[in-house]
Amino acid sequence: MNDKQNKVFAAIIIIGNEILSGRTQETNLVTISKWLNNQGVAVEEVRVIPDNEKTIIDTVNELRKKFNYVFTTGGIGPTHDDITTESVSKAFNLKYEYHKEAYALLEKYYSPEKFNEGRKKMAKLPSESKLIYNPSSGAPGFIVENVFCLPGVPSILTSMLGGLQNEISGGKAILSKTINLKTVESEIAKSLQIVQEENKEVQIGSYPFFKSGKLGVAIVLRSEDKKKIDKCNLEILKFVAKKNISIME
Amino acid sequence: MNDKQNKVFAAIIIIGNEILSGRTQETNLVTISKWLNNQGVAVEEVRVIPDNEKTIIDTVNELRKKFNYVFTTGGIGPTHDDITTESVSKAFNLKYEYHKEAYALLEKYYSPEKFNEGRKKMAKLPSESKLIYNPSSGAPGFIVENVFCLPGVPSILTSMLGGLQNEISGGKAILSKTINLKTVESEIAKSLQIVQEENKEVQIGSYPFFKSGKLGVAIVLRSEDKKKIDKCNLEILKFVAKKNISIME
Repeated sequence: MNDKQNKVFAAIIIIGNEILSGRTQETNLVTISKWLNNQGVAVEEVRVIPDNEKTIIDTVNELRKKFNYVFTTGGIGPTHDDITTESVSKAFNLKYEYHKEAYALLEKYYSPEKFNEGRKKMAKLPSESKLIYNPSSGAPGFIVENVFCLPGVPSILTSMLGGLQNEISGGKAILSKTINLKTVESEIAKSLQIVQEENKEVQIGSYPFFKSGKLGVAIVLRSEDKKKIDKCNLEILKFVAKKNISIME
Repeated sequence: MNDKQNKVFAAIIIIGNEILSGRTQETNLVTISKWLNNQGVAVEEVRVIPDNEKTIIDTVNELRKKFNYVFTTGGIGPTHDDITTESVSKAFNLKYEYHKEAYALLEKYYSPEKFNEGRKKMAKLPSESKLIYNPSSGAPGFIVENVFCLPGVPSILTSMLGGLQNEISGGKAILSKTINLKTVESEIAKSLQIVQEENKEVQIGSYPFFKSGKLGVAIVLRSEDKKKIDKCNLEILKFVAKKNISIME
């Protein structure tokens, strides 16, 4: 999909052994991707990688050249396994040092006896980085060029996205329409393929589901152009009627 | 972590626009990773990529050289957007053709009038591939060399993993122990770092949580050696007692 004109693409790098090991169910992908969709940015690749300096540096450097925006999650906290910030500094050949504004912010957030080494660590950032404010728990994220570094805790990450709206220049918002059919994929595969061939600019996805005792297929139409989605929708409704397939709410 | 001896590593490639767009919450990573852990295989990288032929070919070819095993999920169904099987055939320069055993299996599963073009498509596989049997819904997955291709529907994928046990030669199982502490990360960061430095062969992760009104930190110790985990655990319990931090169940 990279060949489409005027599109803005992003990648997400999820950093954390706890995700790779299966201990923790990842949920930030959905949050970030939906938020970016609303800004007209499509997520084209996601990588989950371990808390390993070389891997972080290589992945950030590969993806920041390939995509308009890169979001990282995880590894910016106070403990020894939080190595994202220092690794991103190295990826950009920037100093990893106390960031004046971040230091002042954290100093104000904590009482003096609580502002210990671990908390001070969270004020160390790549030099020249721009802060992403954290309304939930003080410690900021940061932006270096097109790389946005956010924490891994889902509630904190979600609270920080709102402040990023003006930092992103997206394309047109990507619209979508879902049609839920009471059928199985094999019954509609051929007809759907014909509609896809005649509507190349609409991305048509077909997803079987079994939910609360119901078996069906969700047809998802995605495009920036509502008219094209509507045309495609009509063609699907036509073959659905001909086949006597019910539409589910 | 790739430099560790006698370790067996895997990558997972999650194929599907619906995951990238945030429409569908991914859950197969946790299922596959935990299952592989039990076989002594550690997942070292996960990529989520679109239903795009070139991307699938490039990603499969990159990762199958880098890891002992590669698992793919998604894109092996009957519809036009299911292009994983044909793309994997191309990645290996193998023919994409009717697989005798898969064809016989699906022919038997469906009544003749139901064995239509879409269903026949699921019998087309890379030549020479080995089947992964599907106790849930007939259509098999397949193995080519070290690449294992599974469907995206979580319940079906889960039902197919059981049959794969004899196909994987893992290392020692990776053991883990979790200690939940009633504290925040910054209070223990320094002590934990000292324990990590003195126990380099145990991977110590620190994960803050806010769950059902409780605030805490989960310390996760991972190693193949139970004795090393026990030693590490004891050192953590010592500083925890000294700091008067409660342990949560």
